[in-house]
Amino acid sequence: MAKNLQWVLESRPKGWVREDNFRLVEGEVPRPGPGQVLVRNLYLSLDPYMRGRMDDAKSYSAKVELGQVMVGGTVGEVVESNNPSFKPGEKVVGYLGWQLYALSDGRDLNRIAEGAPIPLSAYLGPVGMPGVTAWVGLFEIGNPRPGETVVVSAASGAVGSVVGQLAKRMGCRVVGIAGGREKCDYVVKELGFDACADYKAGELHAQLKAACPAGIDVYFENVGGEILDTVLRLVNTFARVPLCGLISQYNETDPRGMKMMGSLLVNRVRLQGFIVSDNMAPWPKALRELGQMVARGQLKYRESVAEGIKSAPRAFIGMLKGENLGKQLVKLT
Amino acid sequence: MAKNLQWVLESRPKGWVREDNFRLVEGEVPRPGPGQVLVRNLYLSLDPYMRGRMDDAKSYSAKVELGQVMVGGTVGEVVESNNPSFKPGEKVVGYLGWQLYALSDGRDLNRIAEGAPIPLSAYLGPVGMPGVTAWVGLFEIGNPRPGETVVVSAASGAVGSVVGQLAKRMGCRVVGIAGGREKCDYVVKELGFDACADYKAGELHAQLKAACPAGIDVYFENVGGEILDTVLRLVNTFARVPLCGLISQYNETDPRGMKMMGSLLVNRVRLQGFIVSDNMAPWPKALRELGQMVARGQLKYRESVAEGIKSAPRAFIGMLKGENLGKQLVKLT
Repeated sequence: MAKNLQWVLESRPKGWVREDNFRLVEGEVPRPGPGQVLVRNLYLSLDPYMRGRMDDAKSYSAKVELGQVMVGGTVGEVVESNNPSFKPGEKVVGYLGWQLYALSDGRDLNRIAEGAPIPLSAYLGPVGMPGVTAWVGLFEIGNPRPGETVVVSAASGAVGSVVGQLAKRMGCRVVGIAGGREKCDYVVKELGFDACADYKAGELHAQLKAACPAGIDVYFENVGGEILDTVLRLVNTFARVPLCGLISQYNETDPRGMKMMGSLLVNRVRLQGFIVSDNMAPWPKALRELGQMVARGQLKYRESVAEGIKSAPRAFIGMLKGENLGKQLVKLT
Repeated sequence: MAKNLQWVLESRPKGWVREDNFRLVEGEVPRPGPGQVLVRNLYLSLDPYMRGRMDDAKSYSAKVELGQVMVGGTVGEVVESNNPSFKPGEKVVGYLGWQLYALSDGRDLNRIAEGAPIPLSAYLGPVGMPGVTAWVGLFEIGNPRPGETVVVSAASGAVGSVVGQLAKRMGCRVVGIAGGREKCDYVVKELGFDACADYKAGELHAQLKAACPAGIDVYFENVGGEILDTVLRLVNTFARVPLCGLISQYNETDPRGMKMMGSLLVNRVRLQGFIVSDNMAPWPKALRELGQMVARGQLKYRESVAEGIKSAPRAFIGMLKGENLGKQLVKLT
């Protein structure tokens, strides 16, 4: 008989997260109660925000308690259902965490339309939370105009890759920042960005300056640290900085912060932190259009897929270190 | 016969500005050409932004060149006029710089209505650029709602004192930050703020936490540095930070920057640099209402007045060090 496997938070990281901050727990597959759905997860999404949930500090939403299953987005299949809205065999997007099986009352599940020409895993990437994050941050906060220059960090990642392609479609000059030649080649040759600066190659300021001859109007920020300061030396008057993530800082005990405050003032920059779940209004339109683009091959993406639930902690740490290319997933079956 | 006296920029400061960065030049009083107005300046405004103009770096607007007269807001009297829009004896607000006499083509002069129950010097403070700065930053960027908590740094200064009084009038809880007991007493007892934290007394975080039991919704930033980070530990979700100035950093060769980037993200803070002259649309309404409030005694302010043009550099440096209370002016006659 099938067993459930769950990764629970064993201890809170001090600085860099380690594999022994997690503990694998084996248990029974739960049985759905009245109104409940049993879901077998097929894919688990690994995302930078999860690092914040591991800390004993205020974050976007509740932290994960010690001994609790790690949170995370999932795509799964309904196995049993006592809920009239779901039938066995249906595929659902959920937020069911780092585990093979989970119960849900159905309110946090979204059914995936059968027969859509979109791979299941894409609902955790370009047609899911990362895609909508890119959409909202770019259009609602970045608000670029055609011809403006948009720079995005973590450009090959799940969010950054969508940001750049959306900006490119609307007629912006798009420049990525990524770590290493392979990622930069992917960003330019496959995703179609105009240029990509390799922060691991040194001289980031010179690279960006050459790639952005008209300055930077929108900087979609995913990383923080020194890269942010380097970009702030090149922003134009009235630049917008959607602040989506600070992945370079999450594992630092003494975050670097931002030195270039003066640039925000002199250039009248608007820097705005946001979380995609703050406002659900744009989701339906964004998901519909992102889904169409993926189905038509107009929105490209790549995935780094770790095999098996046991690989989740290692894959998570690798993602935080930038070892993945594109969306980091765990294939659970 | 009268002579002109002008302070020109002699050298660019390295770190803290010094008196010998300026040079006093004596010369003839200029004669107005066709269409020109000769103005005798009565008051010179000294403002933190002038420090940026002394650097050989990009600032809001053009830097002052070596040998040029230092820029600055002025109130003066028309002495001679070849311009049909101005008559001798009329009082005008201008941007005529650190000098006793100046020529203007009239386009940068605003006539002060005769008989208004507003002291001339107030046109350089609450009924001038600093007042409109407070207005625009508070209402257009801070956008507080009644009942929210508004914190303002440099609270006893020309801008901060207006910010707090405007926020108080609309029903906010208003907390100032200022340096020293005298300034804090003035802010609470005379300006009517709910509380004022003294950053020189230590334990700023504890002081602010006690003064802001419901957290901070709007932080009107004039100073930067450690104070900004301390405030960012206490901001609420969706807080707004109008970034008006960074006076604590202007003379630092290695600015501290902002450590608390994570708070901007977690709390979805909007931080926006602004310059009051970017958008002239709100000026007429703001000046009209600020003028009415001053005339009715509803908007209080204090001035630190240095006597004579020779005192300008010393008064400017003192202002940057926070030695003034309220608006720093130089009385030129």
